Amino acid sequence: MNPMKHNVDYSLYLVTDRDIMSTSTIEEAVEQAIKGGVTLVQLREKRASSLEFYETALRVKQITDSYNVPLIINDRVDIALAADAAGVHVGQRDLPAARVREIIGPDKILGVSASCFEEAVQAEKDGADYLGVGAMFPTGTKTDADITTMDELRRIRGAVSIPIVVIGGINKNTLPLFAGTGIDGIAVVSAIISAADVQEAARELKTLLQQVR
Amino acid sequence: MNPMKHNVDYSLYLVTDRDIMSTSTIEEAVEQAIKGGVTLVQLREKRASSLEFYETALRVKQITDSYNVPLIINDRVDIALAADAAGVHVGQRDLPAARVREIIGPDKILGVSASCFEEAVQAEKDGADYLGVGAMFPTGTKTDADITTMDELRRIRGAVSIPIVVIGGINKNTLPLFAGTGIDGIAVVSAIISAADVQEAARELKTLLQQVR
Repeated sequence: MNPMKHNVDYSLYLVTDRDIMSTSTIEEAVEQAIKGGVTLVQLREKRASSLEFYETALRVKQITDSYNVPLIINDRVDIALAADAAGVHVGQRDLPAARVREIIGPDKILGVSASCFEEAVQAEKDGADYLGVGAMFPTGTKTDADITTMDELRRIRGAVSIPIVVIGGINKNTLPLFAGTGIDGIAVVSAIISAADVQEAARELKTLLQQVR
Repeated sequence: MNPMKHNVDYSLYLVTDRDIMSTSTIEEAVEQAIKGGVTLVQLREKRASSLEFYETALRVKQITDSYNVPLIINDRVDIALAADAAGVHVGQRDLPAARVREIIGPDKILGVSASCFEEAVQAEKDGADYLGVGAMFPTGTKTDADITTMDELRRIRGAVSIPIVVIGGINKNTLPLFAGTGIDGIAVVSAIISAADVQEAARELKTLLQQVR
């Protein structure tokens, strides 16, 4: 049993995006973000070859490991296994969650994206350890995303017992809207990765999170 | 132990490409090709979502299983595992072969692309069950491929003991050039998948193969 799996801090979850990052490397962004308070990192590579994705994952894992922060791989279950990441995050267009759980076994973290109640309930049944719920707001980094309303988020929170991380347009302006919703954390792409000062952007969100909860 | 793994017939190996197929579905192309004599099928999907790739693999596997033909998945080790394909084929820009072997275990077929002697020898060491050697000729389906000379092919054949399948520009005109080279089979994309009559195209190559060997 992975001793870390049940003690994961989902509060400030960074999702990478090399197309909009302000730093010159993903590794630099990840390290600065962790120094600013990021508790979980998802590596997302949409155009890399499998080898590039794998090698990037190995480099990023050196950093996340040194700060004891779990590394989650987006979509690619094989990359997560090859790099021995802490887990994998799948969306509704990726491999089915139940099949992924069979492949990765019980110890690795499985995250699943859900934009509505039905997907959320199904994901928990399929063995998800946490949900990424959204997109909560229109966002430039995922233009095809369905919008999840605050009411739908509350419905999901009332129905599932696994941790919920909201995603999609979360920044210092929208974060206060989640006060009292019972979420476990926020997943952030551009509000951290595109910031001129990545560490400071993470720190600001971290401080705000503590006020909101 | 997979009883089929050591009895694989590598002689006429179809690699799919939905961009240039003459049929309306991959499934139709695969079934026609098998009826014409194809002995092994590699499903290659370069732009599909993981879910689409997985669902296509499940549909194609129903066909290959019904003809007792092994299905190999290109690049995506996770799709191969999820669909319980017979194996996976990786190129030099995919996950490293040795790591793939660790993930898939001893029973699944592992194919590795090699364009030169060094890659071929390394792939055998890393646990490859067969090599895809090429591109033997310039080809429209893989424009970035390095060309492998006939001399290099002979050098590889002299150094490795696993089956060798040549790939890249193999068709009824180029096939006779491989007489006496000791190859175990030919991998074909456009010469079968783009043919007006897929089954007939496979049958012609099959007949020619028997004359050449």
